[in-house]
Amino acid sequence: MKIVIAPDSFKESLTALEVAEAIETGFKRVFPDEIYQKVPMADGGEGSVQSLIDATAGLLVEVEVTAPLGDKTQAFLGISGDKQTAFIEMAAASGLHLVPFSQRNPLKTTSYGTGELIKKALDLGVSKILLGIGGSATNDGGVGMLQALGVSFRNSQQQEIGFGGERLAEIAAISLENLDPRLAKVQFEVACDVNNPLCGERGAAAVFGPQKGATPEMVQQLDQALAHFAKVAAQQLGVEIADHAGAGAAGGMGGGLLLLPNVQLKAGVQIIIEATQLAEQIKDADLVITGEGRMDAQSIAGKTPIGVAKTAKQFGKPVIAIVGCLREDYSVVYQHGIDAVFPIICQLNNLEDTLKQGKQNLISTAENVARLIKLKI
Amino acid sequence: MKIVIAPDSFKESLTALEVAEAIETGFKRVFPDEIYQKVPMADGGEGSVQSLIDATAGLLVEVEVTAPLGDKTQAFLGISGDKQTAFIEMAAASGLHLVPFSQRNPLKTTSYGTGELIKKALDLGVSKILLGIGGSATNDGGVGMLQALGVSFRNSQQQEIGFGGERLAEIAAISLENLDPRLAKVQFEVACDVNNPLCGERGAAAVFGPQKGATPEMVQQLDQALAHFAKVAAQQLGVEIADHAGAGAAGGMGGGLLLLPNVQLKAGVQIIIEATQLAEQIKDADLVITGEGRMDAQSIAGKTPIGVAKTAKQFGKPVIAIVGCLREDYSVVYQHGIDAVFPIICQLNNLEDTLKQGKQNLISTAENVARLIKLKI
Repeated sequence: MKIVIAPDSFKESLTALEVAEAIETGFKRVFPDEIYQKVPMADGGEGSVQSLIDATAGLLVEVEVTAPLGDKTQAFLGISGDKQTAFIEMAAASGLHLVPFSQRNPLKTTSYGTGELIKKALDLGVSKILLGIGGSATNDGGVGMLQALGVSFRNSQQQEIGFGGERLAEIAAISLENLDPRLAKVQFEVACDVNNPLCGERGAAAVFGPQKGATPEMVQQLDQALAHFAKVAAQQLGVEIADHAGAGAAGGMGGGLLLLPNVQLKAGVQIIIEATQLAEQIKDADLVITGEGRMDAQSIAGKTPIGVAKTAKQFGKPVIAIVGCLREDYSVVYQHGIDAVFPIICQLNNLEDTLKQGKQNLISTAENVARLIKLKI
Repeated sequence: MKIVIAPDSFKESLTALEVAEAIETGFKRVFPDEIYQKVPMADGGEGSVQSLIDATAGLLVEVEVTAPLGDKTQAFLGISGDKQTAFIEMAAASGLHLVPFSQRNPLKTTSYGTGELIKKALDLGVSKILLGIGGSATNDGGVGMLQALGVSFRNSQQQEIGFGGERLAEIAAISLENLDPRLAKVQFEVACDVNNPLCGERGAAAVFGPQKGATPEMVQQLDQALAHFAKVAAQQLGVEIADHAGAGAAGGMGGGLLLLPNVQLKAGVQIIIEATQLAEQIKDADLVITGEGRMDAQSIAGKTPIGVAKTAKQFGKPVIAIVGCLREDYSVVYQHGIDAVFPIICQLNNLEDTLKQGKQNLISTAENVARLIKLKI
């Protein structure tokens, strides 16, 4: 029997690899001699770089970059074991967690650090870049990121504009002349799970601005600034980014990325499934086990277990999910390829102790699932 | 496929029948056309009467009896569907919960009410009495119970002694002359899961007295009173109760019961298994599902699921336990016939809401267990 174990991480508790290892440990107590293939998964959000490093036997590279408010911070990217692919999470360089609560202000924050991570990936000679853009502190349309990669944004005084979403309103001229030429030679996939346009009611500022610290007035200012950026880009570069699905992701980062060559916005879990060659692993498996920290009705909207299940069902494989906790509304997952779900919580306790017991509870739950399978009822 | 569902109650949440019904509901979502046999179980403790009524299509009979402190209270007993067997819980008439905390004093409390319940069973014409003796407020050696059934305990002034453990010290003469003669014709089984002797360090007063409100001085006084009772019984009736295993159960109730004809002390779950003819049901089953509110290492000491599992294993049947919660130390149950265990808690919450969600979580867990079985991996 070949068993593929392809879970997401359990946030705040275990990485995807640790989850996979715990499930394997539990199963091996019952089936010690089966073939186990652990494929740490992710959905393009937090933990994706670690999962891809683990899945490809890659390595983590630390990089000093510009933080959202312009100071320096230590960020990271991942490189696949074959050195051909870089894994980047925008949040590592430009994440909301890097800005103290009292200073959260998307008029000021820049995505420049994410551009520096991309530049570092190019320095490392990769042929492919996978970028997750969740959790950002910014609403600068990715302009900071583009500046780090050589794109020039000048105001009417021919000066390069400064950092922050508010400065986009000053853009008079955009030039790709000094864009890093290596970008033309890499395949660039962006994990993007929202289809919001750049501006308007469903745009970046209106939908995601408030959680980044924007007041209603700031939302309006930022929305107009993004619209101005899109207008100049359309006029001068002939690239229409305003209405592109996903352009509004990550404060307009989705839109800004469209100015780069070879960029594709894709569903996060799909990028990870391809990067880990999950289908190859599942093809000859007898059972697929997936999991995530919390399963609920939202899980069908691009979360890892459903992506894994869809891949498994292409080959008609049974899929079991082992999850940290399970919300009452979870049962819709049955219609999306999950055959059975088992939460690992064993008793009421406080959150801290429950998270600490996560590994043991995972092992125990996996063991009981394996025991039930072994009964051959 | 025939599935026997034989769980204990989930204390404070669901009766054994409700647990069995919820498990059936979950299973039927996946296997609507199988044969389900629900056998509500118990271990002789709280909930046993209800489970036996449910298991035998019997009925509940309310009886006014003497409460532990001598006042009146409304108690109950159960009668099997065929009217041949009475089910009694000592706690219904003589339970600790009937005595306000501030008045708990085993020098004063009597088991007289339990004797009244036994008398009521005899009035109803049963041929068999099953008595569970857990949870009592008394330490009177069952003397109150015996008095209610016609046994006479006189002091040196030829007066009947009063209620309470302290009065045993006065016993000068015991007479069975007026013992209810119907007792000679009934089979009397007592569910007793402790093997403590009547007196001494492991005796009723020392081990169980403190939880009933006894101070160290009271424990000593009660222990001496029980020893005196045993000495008189041995001298005058030729019945040695002091060192009988289980004589110390329920404040010496186990010992007092030995003065009655045809009384057998047995493991609680064994009595219930026989009363429900569980083995008959399991003989041709394909799967046995049991459960209890909390499973832990203590579960192997006479708790329901292990009793059910042992019966199932006599016929080589697979046994799954679905439980309210699961303690870290539970895994010893695997060596006692439980093949796999699934806790029903799905998420952290407060106890009240978790108990309220018990039925839904049970149904959901049973469904997922059935789904896993259906995968035929």
